[in-house]
Amino acid sequence: MKMRYLTAGESHGKAITTILEGIPANLEISKEDIDRELARRQGGYGRGGRMKIETDQANVLSGIRGGKTLGSPITLQIENRDWINWEEVMDPFGDSGYSQEELVIKKETKIKHVKPKVTKPRPGHADLAGSLKYNHEDIRNILERASARETAMRVAVGAIAKTFLKNFGIEVAGHVLQVGTVALDKKLDMELEELKVKSEGSPLRCVDEETTKEMIKEIDRCKEAGDSLGGIFEIRTTNLPVGLGSHVQWDRKLDARLTMALMSIQAIKGVEVGLGMEAGKRWGSKVHDEIFYDDKFYRTTNNAGGIEGGMTNGEPIILRAAMKPIPTLYQPLSSVDLETKEKFKASVERSDVTAVPAASVVGEAVVAFELAKTFLEKFGGDSMEEIKANYENYLAMVKER
Amino acid sequence: MKMRYLTAGESHGKAITTILEGIPANLEISKEDIDRELARRQGGYGRGGRMKIETDQANVLSGIRGGKTLGSPITLQIENRDWINWEEVMDPFGDSGYSQEELVIKKETKIKHVKPKVTKPRPGHADLAGSLKYNHEDIRNILERASARETAMRVAVGAIAKTFLKNFGIEVAGHVLQVGTVALDKKLDMELEELKVKSEGSPLRCVDEETTKEMIKEIDRCKEAGDSLGGIFEIRTTNLPVGLGSHVQWDRKLDARLTMALMSIQAIKGVEVGLGMEAGKRWGSKVHDEIFYDDKFYRTTNNAGGIEGGMTNGEPIILRAAMKPIPTLYQPLSSVDLETKEKFKASVERSDVTAVPAASVVGEAVVAFELAKTFLEKFGGDSMEEIKANYENYLAMVKER
Amino acid sequence: MKMRYLTAGESHGKAITTILEGIPANLEISKEDIDRELARRQGGYGRGGRMKIETDQANVLSGIRGGKTLGSPITLQIENRDWINWEEVMDPFGDSGYSQEELVIKKETKIKHVKPKVTKPRPGHADLAGSLKYNHEDIRNILERASARETAMRVAVGAIAKTFLKNFGIEVAGHVLQVGTVALDKKLDMELEELKVKSEGSPLRCVDEETTKEMIKEIDRCKEAGDSLGGIFEIRTTNLPVGLGSHVQWDRKLDARLTMALMSIQAIKGVEVGLGMEAGKRWGSKVHDEIFYDDKFYRTTNNAGGIEGGMTNGEPIILRAAMKPIPTLYQPLSSVDLETKEKFKASVERSDVTAVPAASVVGEAVVAFELAKTFLEKFGGDSMEEIKANYENYLAMVKER
Amino acid sequence: MKMRYLTAGESHGKAITTILEGIPANLEISKEDIDRELARRQGGYGRGGRMKIETDQANVLSGIRGGKTLGSPITLQIENRDWINWEEVMDPFGDSGYSQEELVIKKETKIKHVKPKVTKPRPGHADLAGSLKYNHEDIRNILERASARETAMRVAVGAIAKTFLKNFGIEVAGHVLQVGTVALDKKLDMELEELKVKSEGSPLRCVDEETTKEMIKEIDRCKEAGDSLGGIFEIRTTNLPVGLGSHVQWDRKLDARLTMALMSIQAIKGVEVGLGMEAGKRWGSKVHDEIFYDDKFYRTTNNAGGIEGGMTNGEPIILRAAMKPIPTLYQPLSSVDLETKEKFKASVERSDVTAVPAASVVGEAVVAFELAKTFLEKFGGDSMEEIKANYENYLAMVKER
Repeated sequence: MKMRYLTAGESHGKAITTILEGIPANLEISKEDIDRELARRQGGYGRGGRMKIETDQANVLSGIRGGKTLGSPITLQIENRDWINWEEVMDPFGDSGYSQEELVIKKETKIKHVKPKVTKPRPGHADLAGSLKYNHEDIRNILERASARETAMRVAVGAIAKTFLKNFGIEVAGHVLQVGTVALDKKLDMELEELKVKSEGSPLRCVDEETTKEMIKEIDRCKEAGDSLGGIFEIRTTNLPVGLGSHVQWDRKLDARLTMALMSIQAIKGVEVGLGMEAGKRWGSKVHDEIFYDDKFYRTTNNAGGIEGGMTNGEPIILRAAMKPIPTLYQPLSSVDLETKEKFKASVERSDVTAVPAASVVGEAVVAFELAKTFLEKFGGDSMEEIKANYENYLAMVKER
Repeated sequence: MKMRYLTAGESHGKAITTILEGIPANLEISKEDIDRELARRQGGYGRGGRMKIETDQANVLSGIRGGKTLGSPITLQIENRDWINWEEVMDPFGDSGYSQEELVIKKETKIKHVKPKVTKPRPGHADLAGSLKYNHEDIRNILERASARETAMRVAVGAIAKTFLKNFGIEVAGHVLQVGTVALDKKLDMELEELKVKSEGSPLRCVDEETTKEMIKEIDRCKEAGDSLGGIFEIRTTNLPVGLGSHVQWDRKLDARLTMALMSIQAIKGVEVGLGMEAGKRWGSKVHDEIFYDDKFYRTTNNAGGIEGGMTNGEPIILRAAMKPIPTLYQPLSSVDLETKEKFKASVERSDVTAVPAASVVGEAVVAFELAKTFLEKFGGDSMEEIKANYENYLAMVKER
Repeated sequence: MKMRYLTAGESHGKAITTILEGIPANLEISKEDIDRELARRQGGYGRGGRMKIETDQANVLSGIRGGKTLGSPITLQIENRDWINWEEVMDPFGDSGYSQEELVIKKETKIKHVKPKVTKPRPGHADLAGSLKYNHEDIRNILERASARETAMRVAVGAIAKTFLKNFGIEVAGHVLQVGTVALDKKLDMELEELKVKSEGSPLRCVDEETTKEMIKEIDRCKEAGDSLGGIFEIRTTNLPVGLGSHVQWDRKLDARLTMALMSIQAIKGVEVGLGMEAGKRWGSKVHDEIFYDDKFYRTTNNAGGIEGGMTNGEPIILRAAMKPIPTLYQPLSSVDLETKEKFKASVERSDVTAVPAASVVGEAVVAFELAKTFLEKFGGDSMEEIKANYENYLAMVKER
Repeated sequence: MKMRYLTAGESHGKAITTILEGIPANLEISKEDIDRELARRQGGYGRGGRMKIETDQANVLSGIRGGKTLGSPITLQIENRDWINWEEVMDPFGDSGYSQEELVIKKETKIKHVKPKVTKPRPGHADLAGSLKYNHEDIRNILERASARETAMRVAVGAIAKTFLKNFGIEVAGHVLQVGTVALDKKLDMELEELKVKSEGSPLRCVDEETTKEMIKEIDRCKEAGDSLGGIFEIRTTNLPVGLGSHVQWDRKLDARLTMALMSIQAIKGVEVGLGMEAGKRWGSKVHDEIFYDDKFYRTTNNAGGIEGGMTNGEPIILRAAMKPIPTLYQPLSSVDLETKEKFKASVERSDVTAVPAASVVGEAVVAFELAKTFLEKFGGDSMEEIKANYENYLAMVKER
């Protein structure tokens, strides 16, 4: 019951919104802390048109005053700039545009002609399952919410979680390991700070310049072929205090919570902690991280990815997630009309080739949220001052052991 | 708030227990339905001594009467046969055995001499993190609960969930794909029924006889070397109704819930849905499952693993999980004594080489639980009769579309 | 996990917001359905200035399209018209008005001079406890959120819940039984429809004209004396289906949930079901409702208030709640400055004498929410069509018994 | 997600069980701490036969070792001594006794002849609603779980919560204010310690000897008349730290949680905080507690019952709950057979006249649980040592204000 949030909003509705509850009082935060993260999500080589029109800005409507949190629920809201085009179709109490034959949507210089009712489910989307489940004849009633636009709100939530964690010296950073067939094949041998700087400098959020170039080529090739790409990103943290999460009950295990959060991101199909799937292939003597002591307990390897027995073991957390390619393709896939049952080739809705760099930013956000939540469960407290005192107290206890 | 459960119990305590709540009334179930699953967890080539002494039997202490569920919470309890050896050490209100120099534990024909207080944390276990978090000087206070013995309770819960699902024609089956370096390298081209029969017949729960033999050799090699093995297992289901889970909020996505459940199993380090990590490497045209219609919507491929937009799409669910090798080794790892801070080589606590077949049974159980829970969220109802009517009603609605 | 909501917003912030999740698809709803309830909360004899400036209108920002719910989260937002006066003080990233000696706030024709920082805790409010808990020096950081302004959001949520329930013939209505020393002393012998009409026609929401007049006199007397008044309201429903809620676990009992919801309303100090406190004073033969049958089971008395064993028994639900008087008084109470520790007499912040009629509208809302939530737990379903079929199915099952 | 528990078990099943999760490590506890509370629940003038045969003893099956909690889930179990009589009827996998015409149940010296299938619903019980909801033909499938026998488990949970709270100087004590028409009519002017001693010494848990005698007479009169009695009990605490609970969201308000907990006790129909229902009748100047300061903030009145804005305000908590009379009567009530629809007079199942003293013990337990849970949410921590340091830290912060 500590930290929780709900997001809401349709992709072409008036606004997307989140209410974030359980953030303690007196956390210093600036508008830039939030907007910077929103901008990071919108970058990345291989994005199509929409990312350019939407430069997201979060409106803070509650829970923050004078640059500090109040302890009350925080409302964050992002207006959809495209709303003006969709007002009739998406109006809560209008006619859904059904009175018109065709809708004319302006996107920058482009003009799109759109049927008011969507009846053609796209493979790889929520379209078909959602329409049947919720008994909707108009697939728009599903796709508007299933859209990855929702992740902007999660990034905003994550921005606050990150700001919270920074007060305790905890950083969370993501970077891209693979885009389509191109993988970073060098060993990552750098501090988190360097990793952050390097990935931030790459349009693919990849720490290696050479690999970035190869990824760009892959994207260009793919774009030309009218195809799309997924990829793999990794989330790393600085050293965390030992003992976040717990072994005592299945739903308190930190690795379980973190991987649920990552898998809940649109288009994620695989999640790994530390060695991940590779852990199933090696012999035990090549897997476990030996324990050493020099004023404090430490390891020289981190195959566990920072988590043993569902708890942080004092090493950095390492997580990876695989994103499937964007399912909207220039190279169309077969599908069947919901009403007529006629076969058709699934149409293009947008022109992104890949969204893996953006997904890595969303990954950071959801990991930061889960860490902040689990952190607060352990340390309690209602104000930053109280939490810091509790935290110092625990670190001192552990140090004495 | 629909279905939930808590497990409790220490590995060498008097008993392990679970309370399972939210199972509807009038579900027919037999003692064998539960005990058969418990026995399946205890099998598998590569297990050491303990599995032989414990032939788990679940005592049903509430919630079932005359072979039918009441709708009230179900208590399941398994007595630890080894309790007699540990009574003094684990007594809730005794002296924890600290008055003795050394404890003598009989295990079958073997006699073990054990220090009453454990101060040597084993790499790869909850030992170190747990002892620091909970401020315990005796690591036994952690390892007793962190033990995979707890999974017996989850299998018991899963047995009830499976029995529930069977009433709707839904089956959940696991099989082993990889043990250490040996992988099943054939395409799985069989119905679930065949998969069940074949995996059930293999001491490694592998559907292929040739691969089973190779796995046995790998285990023997590894045992001789004093090492241990992890592996990869897969969970498959029969076709599920379209629309379990939801895209509307991150914590309602079925893939996220299933991943959390699998990752919460002791020693799991990676989870995949459908193509899994591979989805990040392929081009989009090779990933998405085209939609066809012939009296109902269907697919000819299932790269999505049965889930799109966080919902079942009507195809079988396919999940994979990687288990790290058992961390207790004959080939010992370096560690540091919690009290003296002296370096030591981590001792052997048991003699299993691998537990992957058992883990696949646990995997079935946690997947079955999440499916039953999500099923009940969608269909409601307090008695089997009511749920069946609701279910038929929905199937008819979908069929009419 | 079925229905849930979070409210957010400070009393003088830019807007108050709620996200409501779990409402099924295809529920028909109009803007008027929501705004009418908001207006009902703002009425009532004995209210001061603010209620007149705020004529609340809910903006629907998500979850509803073309007059029907989508099944996705519903965002409701009410702008605070007073925001223009408070912009500097409440700005998320401003200077909190601390740079000024004094703030000038215009309210209709009145002009108020306000200290930027509030240090004087008012008895009967969250002021003191909240400031110490959250480590705030400025009590405004607490009182803005603790304000009953928040209940506008709950009424908006309740409006949707009521609309949902109406689809199943279920109505929820509140009326006022007591204001200060004046109580309705006649037996309530009318149908719910009549009760609704009569209470709606009274400025005190009291079903009896004579008593309404006496209540008005009490309020006038009290206003003259510079004092304030609480009261008691009652919530009644039409007949509900038997079996909402459950006896199987403490937190599934419907009476427990309903009373939690009522007690969570600002200023409520007592909650009763059926006979309520009186049930502790009568002999058993005068308390329990005998069971009769005439095509269906029924009762001729309803001392239980419609709930037995934590479940609806098929009779109307009857709940009562007592509200303490508004704690801001012209007749001031002693308190102590948070900074200086100097004694002072607590100042007046607003001029309402009583808010009991408004509270009864909030009471309806929270009861409607809990009923809708518990209803969905029992009947499942993602669209109104599916839920209705499930509901009919259950009613038929019960009828056959 | 901090503290939670589930209870399970049928009244005449083999055992009742609870799993309590979230209790921190290193809490010292003895078997007597638990059994003493169980014995307190079983006392009280006006109880019939069963209380004498059942002298409940809690078996601790997990979570406690050597007199200290481990931090892992605690299993508590009480065997039903009566099980031997009910074994055939209640057997999880037997024939439910349906093969027999009549069952012979021995209770002490008495012998009862019982129909295997119960079809006669008793007014005032879960019998009718539960049987229809869960589609049971045998009402025994409901009444076994709905029985107040379940509260023994809640008292056991409360015993642990109380032991936890005592470590922070917090006590919770209940006493009986009213039994039927007899009420304690003196002002309670005593410290909690005196209240505990006096109520403990009374067979009605009433602090006044004279009133106790009158209550005994009332019970005797009532017994002779074949009737039953309810009553009102009060729960008080010592001073609590300021700031438990929160005003920020409806479900975090401490008064709402405490009310839910009390209302969830079998047969409770009304709950009051501080002045309770009376708060709706007084003018404001007679209700609110003025604030004073002398080294710390304090009040000279406590009409709020220790809670303002959903938070503890530093004063003792005062709660009252009304219990309806036991619905099984010698003076029978009309009801209708579930199968035949024939009218009958509801039969006697047991001979208690009142259970109010017992209910007050259950009340203490559920209040202690909610307080401990809310306490842990605020102070965090996984071991008693850590929590104590956090607690001292907060007290010091508050003192400095």
